[in-house]
Amino acid sequence: MKCSVYIATSADGYIATPDGGIEWLHSAGNQEADMGTEDMGFQAYMNSVDCMIMGRKCMEMIASFNLTAEQWPYGDMPIIVLSNTIKTPPENLKGKVEMYSGDINELIAKLASDGYKSAYIDGGATITAFINLNLIDEMTITQAPILLGEGLPLFGKIKPAVQLDNAKSIVFANDFTQVKYNVRYR
Amino acid sequence: MKCSVYIATSADGYIATPDGGIEWLHSAGNQEADMGTEDMGFQAYMNSVDCMIMGRKCMEMIASFNLTAEQWPYGDMPIIVLSNTIKTPPENLKGKVEMYSGDINELIAKLASDGYKSAYIDGGATITAFINLNLIDEMTITQAPILLGEGLPLFGKIKPAVQLDNAKSIVFANDFTQVKYNVRYR
Repeated sequence: MKCSVYIATSADGYIATPDGGIEWLHSAGNQEADMGTEDMGFQAYMNSVDCMIMGRKCMEMIASFNLTAEQWPYGDMPIIVLSNTIKTPPENLKGKVEMYSGDINELIAKLASDGYKSAYIDGGATITAFINLNLIDEMTITQAPILLGEGLPLFGKIKPAVQLDNAKSIVFANDFTQVKYNVRYR
Repeated sequence: MKCSVYIATSADGYIATPDGGIEWLHSAGNQEADMGTEDMGFQAYMNSVDCMIMGRKCMEMIASFNLTAEQWPYGDMPIIVLSNTIKTPPENLKGKVEMYSGDINELIAKLASDGYKSAYIDGGATITAFINLNLIDEMTITQAPILLGEGLPLFGKIKPAVQLDNAKSIVFANDFTQVKYNVRYR
């Protein structure tokens, strides 16, 4: 099964401030820019995946947004949340996510045997874990034009180093940039 | 005086491995790619600056290369090395660099009064210090297509957060990407 990443960071590689905040993501960049219908590839990416796997922190951030049904960005896509500590999701995500605490390779095998073909992997710790299991095939990283200076990094410790190829790069009118890579494990 | 940055990082934002190594920079990316005369903008950048300020670690890395006169990439541009611990440069850099241990704003004022107009600021700690003094005007960051997983980060702690604008983005045939920003302090 294909596993891919679509995530935003600051220009210094953080996905959140030290307290988990992502308000900067919405205030960064040129707010006056005419983005037209430009969504920085989000909907096209969503159309390319059929399930989602995220970490607990990522889920808790989404829960904190208290999204209405109209705001919910993930449609009716199955969402699996990895956690060894929490067994039930927050009240406002009940019925929307499923908790999982087992082996990641087994989860991927199960999803593949259930017919899923392309997973959206979200959250820094989860993405790092998947890379260390050689599971991420493709990454789209959108960089907001801001140096946060400190925060939660997208990538944790990865070992050994991982080569990327087939680089693509784009800059948007709001000064956000985006790179897309394939990931090659050797 | 304009201060700018031209530096390479891994895709996860490191300028060197934990032990200071940068061999990965030369082995990363598509080695078969036809780069022609493409130097990823280095010479054009060099033509835009008239002096260089770097940190001690950066100097020590350059010293470790034991460059011949033909390999020396900085021409006869004056190079000032910031260090509070070292008073004389390594033997193989004598006559090529000048040590400085004082106040950075005073150094910039002195260089400006000496007629210098555009400084190349190099080294992670030095770049971070200059940003925190609101001195960096422009940054060109070339990202090698590799996740090092650990190492020396380009950016240290920056406070408060710094907005970037006028983003430009380019991808090279060897899968290196490059972003260029202006820096705005508020």
